[in-house]
Amino acid sequence: MFPKNAWYVAATPDEIDEKPLARTICNEKIVFYRPAPGQVAALEDFCPHRGAALSLGTVVEGQLVCGYHGLAMGCDGKTVSMPGQRVAGFPKIRSFPVVEKYGFIWVWTGDASRADPANIHVLEWADNPKWAYGGGLYHIQCDYRLMVDNLMDLTHETYVHTTSIGQKEIDETPVTTKVDGDHVVTSRFMDQVMAPPFWRANLRGAGLPDDQPVDRWQVCHFHPPSHVLIEVGVALAGRGGYHADPKDKVYSVVTDFLTPETETSMWYFWGMARNFMPGDKSLTAQIRDGQAKVFAEDTAVLEAQQRNLSAWPSRRLLMLNIDAGGVQSRRVIDRLVAAEQPRQETLAA
Amino acid sequence: MFPKNAWYVAATPDEIDEKPLARTICNEKIVFYRPAPGQVAALEDFCPHRGAALSLGTVVEGQLVCGYHGLAMGCDGKTVSMPGQRVAGFPKIRSFPVVEKYGFIWVWTGDASRADPANIHVLEWADNPKWAYGGGLYHIQCDYRLMVDNLMDLTHETYVHTTSIGQKEIDETPVTTKVDGDHVVTSRFMDQVMAPPFWRANLRGAGLPDDQPVDRWQVCHFHPPSHVLIEVGVALAGRGGYHADPKDKVYSVVTDFLTPETETSMWYFWGMARNFMPGDKSLTAQIRDGQAKVFAEDTAVLEAQQRNLSAWPSRRLLMLNIDAGGVQSRRVIDRLVAAEQPRQETLAA
Amino acid sequence: MFPKNAWYVAATPDEIDEKPLARTICNEKIVFYRPAPGQVAALEDFCPHRGAALSLGTVVEGQLVCGYHGLAMGCDGKTVSMPGQRVAGFPKIRSFPVVEKYGFIWVWTGDASRADPANIHVLEWADNPKWAYGGGLYHIQCDYRLMVDNLMDLTHETYVHTTSIGQKEIDETPVTTKVDGDHVVTSRFMDQVMAPPFWRANLRGAGLPDDQPVDRWQVCHFHPPSHVLIEVGVALAGRGGYHADPKDKVYSVVTDFLTPETETSMWYFWGMARNFMPGDKSLTAQIRDGQAKVFAEDTAVLEAQQRNLSAWPSRRLLMLNIDAGGVQSRRVIDRLVAAEQPRQETLAA
Repeated sequence: MFPKNAWYVAATPDEIDEKPLARTICNEKIVFYRPAPGQVAALEDFCPHRGAALSLGTVVEGQLVCGYHGLAMGCDGKTVSMPGQRVAGFPKIRSFPVVEKYGFIWVWTGDASRADPANIHVLEWADNPKWAYGGGLYHIQCDYRLMVDNLMDLTHETYVHTTSIGQKEIDETPVTTKVDGDHVVTSRFMDQVMAPPFWRANLRGAGLPDDQPVDRWQVCHFHPPSHVLIEVGVALAGRGGYHADPKDKVYSVVTDFLTPETETSMWYFWGMARNFMPGDKSLTAQIRDGQAKVFAEDTAVLEAQQRNLSAWPSRRLLMLNIDAGGVQSRRVIDRLVAAEQPRQETLAA
Repeated sequence: MFPKNAWYVAATPDEIDEKPLARTICNEKIVFYRPAPGQVAALEDFCPHRGAALSLGTVVEGQLVCGYHGLAMGCDGKTVSMPGQRVAGFPKIRSFPVVEKYGFIWVWTGDASRADPANIHVLEWADNPKWAYGGGLYHIQCDYRLMVDNLMDLTHETYVHTTSIGQKEIDETPVTTKVDGDHVVTSRFMDQVMAPPFWRANLRGAGLPDDQPVDRWQVCHFHPPSHVLIEVGVALAGRGGYHADPKDKVYSVVTDFLTPETETSMWYFWGMARNFMPGDKSLTAQIRDGQAKVFAEDTAVLEAQQRNLSAWPSRRLLMLNIDAGGVQSRRVIDRLVAAEQPRQETLAA
Repeated sequence: MFPKNAWYVAATPDEIDEKPLARTICNEKIVFYRPAPGQVAALEDFCPHRGAALSLGTVVEGQLVCGYHGLAMGCDGKTVSMPGQRVAGFPKIRSFPVVEKYGFIWVWTGDASRADPANIHVLEWADNPKWAYGGGLYHIQCDYRLMVDNLMDLTHETYVHTTSIGQKEIDETPVTTKVDGDHVVTSRFMDQVMAPPFWRANLRGAGLPDDQPVDRWQVCHFHPPSHVLIEVGVALAGRGGYHADPKDKVYSVVTDFLTPETETSMWYFWGMARNFMPGDKSLTAQIRDGQAKVFAEDTAVLEAQQRNLSAWPSRRLLMLNIDAGGVQSRRVIDRLVAAEQPRQETLAA
C-alpha cells in the first residue's frame, strides 16, 4: 500500500549513465534512461510492437531504440520511427514524470497531470559545498512501511546495532513524537552519555576528544511519501547539545529514501550528509562503509519480520509509545492512499 | 497430514547450545532455545510487539530478548519486560511443550494439556554405556510418509543402496508384517548370505571374519507418530542368527525420527545405535559417515517421487505385500489424525 | 498452446546413450531411454508401483528397472516383472511413440494411434555425406511461439546480433511472406551488400574473398508443429545470388526445432547444416561455437519479452508486415490446436 501521486527516489544518476536501467517502482515496470547527457526519461519497459523489454535497447540520438526490431521510442511514449513502418497509428506507451535533482532520479508513478517537480522534497545539503554526502542502495524483501517503523523508532539501535551506534541509554530515554500536518517528528535527547563506537570515530575524525561524555540527539523526520531524514549528532557534554556551537559537535543527517518496489519489497536509498570536514573524501568513504554495515544489520531483521507477517497476516501488532513515530507516519500514508481512491457516491434515498 | 498431539524430535541438543534455533515443525514456526544450561524452551517465533523473529534475539538471564526492540519473553510466552513499557496487557504468544531426553529435543505441537513427557518413546540405548550412538540430520523435500514407506520396506536397499547395504537376497526374501495396536513390525531374515560391504566393514570392526556366510536380519518397528527403529545385524551363519550370542554377531539399531516440516517437507534425524565396541569413537564416526552416504541416496529418490506425486495428485498407487509395513503404518497415522478432528454431531431426525 | 498430435524433437541421441533422460515435453513428464543399442523408448516418468521417477532407474536386458524397488518396465508401459510379485494386474503406464531419425529423437505426445513416423519432417541434409551438421540445445523460459516469431522475422538480426550476422540492410530490405497450406515462407534478398562478420568468416572458410560485395539471402520456412528451417547464404555479387553456382557461394540451412516444455518454457534445438567443405570438422566446430554465441543473444531478449507478456497478459501487440511470417505460422498452429479440440455439437432447436 503506497501513494502513487508522489515523488519517489528511483535511482542514483550513475545507475543510468552507461545504459538504460530496468527497475520496478510501485509495481510499475519502468525503464530509466538518458536521452541526452544531463537529461532523464522514464517509460513503461514494454515495446508497443511485440512487448520486448525496452531496457535491453540503446539510446540513439535521443531515442530509446528497442533491442529487438529497432523501434525508436520517444521520451513521451510515442513511437518516433521504425525501419520500413509507418508508426503514426502505434499505441502510445506510458511515460512517467521523472526529474534529476539533489543527486537523485525522482519518479512519479501516479497521475502525471499532478506531478510538480516543485514538490520534490528539498534537500538543503545537496549541491552545497559546506556539506558532504555518501550513500548506497539496498534491495530489501519487505514492505517499505516496516522500514518507516524502523527508522521512526531508533530504540532498535540498542539491539540491532549493538556494536556501532547502539547504546543502552537509547531505550532508557523517552521519545517525543509530534505531528504537524504530514510531517512527523520523533525526538530523543540523551545527555551526559559516552558516545558509541560510530560516534567516537566521527569525533576523532572531526578532531574532538572521544573519551569524554557527550550530549547525543536523534531527531527523526518523516515526510511523504516515505522519506525519513534523521538529524543525529553528539556534542561535548554541557556545550548546548543539539544547539551547541559547530566546533563542539559532530552532526549529520541520515537520509533514508524508501521506495516501494512491490507490496513486500523495496529499494532502500540510504546515506549520510554531514556538514563537518566536507572536503575530506576519505572520511566520506569511511562513514559510508560504516553505515553500509550498520544498515545491513536491519535487513535481516526486517526480512524475517516480513516473512512472519506474511505467515500470520491476521495477527494484530502492538502500538506502544516508542512506536508512535511509525504509527503516525503510517497514518499520513493511509490518508494519502485514501485520497487517491475513487470517491464513493452517497446512495440517495 | 500428521498428528499434532505427539512428541516429535525437533533438534539435537547441540543445535541450540550456542544460540536460538528457528525451525518449522508441523507447519508451526518455532524458536527453540536454552533459558539456562540444560534447560530448553520452545515458543512461537513471533514477537508480540511487532512480529519480529524472536529467533534472531539472544538469551539474557533466562529470557529470550527480542533482537529488534528488546522485549524480554518468558518461557511461557508471557512478556516479562520491555524497556520503558508496562507489559501486563501484552498478548501471550504460544509456547510449546518441549523436553530434552535421550539425546534429542522433543516438541509437542498439539494440545499442550495432553503433552506428557512420560509418553516420549523410550530409547533404551540412550545414556547407556553399553551402547554408542552417531547420527545426523537431513532436510528433505518430501511428505514424511514417503520416508515411512521407505523405511518400513527395505527391499529398496537392493536398488537404491547397491554398493553399501543392498544385496539381491533382500528382495528375494519375503517379509512378514505384524500389527500390534499402534506398533507395526516388518521382519526379514536372510540365512546363509554373504554380507554386503557395509556389514563386512562392521564385522571387521568387531574383529569377526568378513569372508564367511552370515545370517542377516532386518526388523523394522514403526511407532507413532513417525519413529522407525530398525534392528539390523549379521551373525556368523548357523550361530542362531538374530538370537546368536553377542560375540558371534554385529548388531545395531538404525534410528529414524521423521519430523514433518510442512505437508511436503521433513526433517530426517537419522542415526545408528550399536552395542558392540561402544567406546570406539573412531568406529562411531566411521559408521556415521558411511550411513550419511547411504541415506543421502534415498533423498534424491524420495524428492523425485514427491515431485511426481505432486504433479499427478489423483493417481492411485499400488499396495503390494512389500508395502504392507508402510500401509499399516499409514493406517496408524490416519487413525491418530482422525482422532484429532473435531467430532461431527449426528444429525437427528 | 501447442498441437500434441505432432512429432517434436525431444533429444539428441547422445543424451540417452549413457542413461535414461527425464524431460518434460508438451507438459508430459517423460523418460527417454535405449532398451538396446540403436533403439529408443519413451514412457511416462512414473513407476506404477509407488510413483518413483523411472528416469532414476537403469536399463537391464531391455527393460527399464525402477531404481526404488526393482520393478521392470517394458517399452509398452506394461510391467514385465517385479521381485516376488505377480504383475499381471499392474496398471499400464503411458508409452509415447518415439523414433530416432535424422540425428534426433522425435516424440509424439498426442493420440498414439495417429503417430506415423513417415510424417516426420524430412531433413535432406541428414545422413548425407555432402552435408555437415553441428548444433546444440538451449532451455529457454518463453512460450515457443515467441521463438517462432523471432525466427520467421530476421529483422531482429540488425539489433540483437549486431556484431555477428546483423547488418543495416536487413531491416531496409522488405520481406515477402507466402503461405502454402501449412508451409509458411518468408524471404529476403539483399543484393550488393558487404557480408557481416559471421559470413565473412564463412567465405574465408570456403576459400572465397571476404572483402567484396555479395548478394545475401534468407529464406525462412515454417513447418508444423514448430520447425523453422532457414536457407541462408551469400554469393559473390552478380553471380546469380540464391541461384549462383555452388563455387561462388556459401550456403547453409539454419535448423530450429522448437519444442514446448510448458506453456512458458521450451527446448531449443538449434543447428546449422552446410553443403560446403562437409569433411572439415574444425569448421563445423567453429560454426557451431559462433552460432551458440549468436543464439544465446536471443535468449535474454525472449525471456524478458515473456516476463513482460506474463506481467501484462491482456495487452495487445502489433502485427506489422515484418511480423507476417510469425503471424501466419501462428495461424497454422492455431488451426492444428483447434482441430485437436473435442468437437462441439450444434444445439438443435
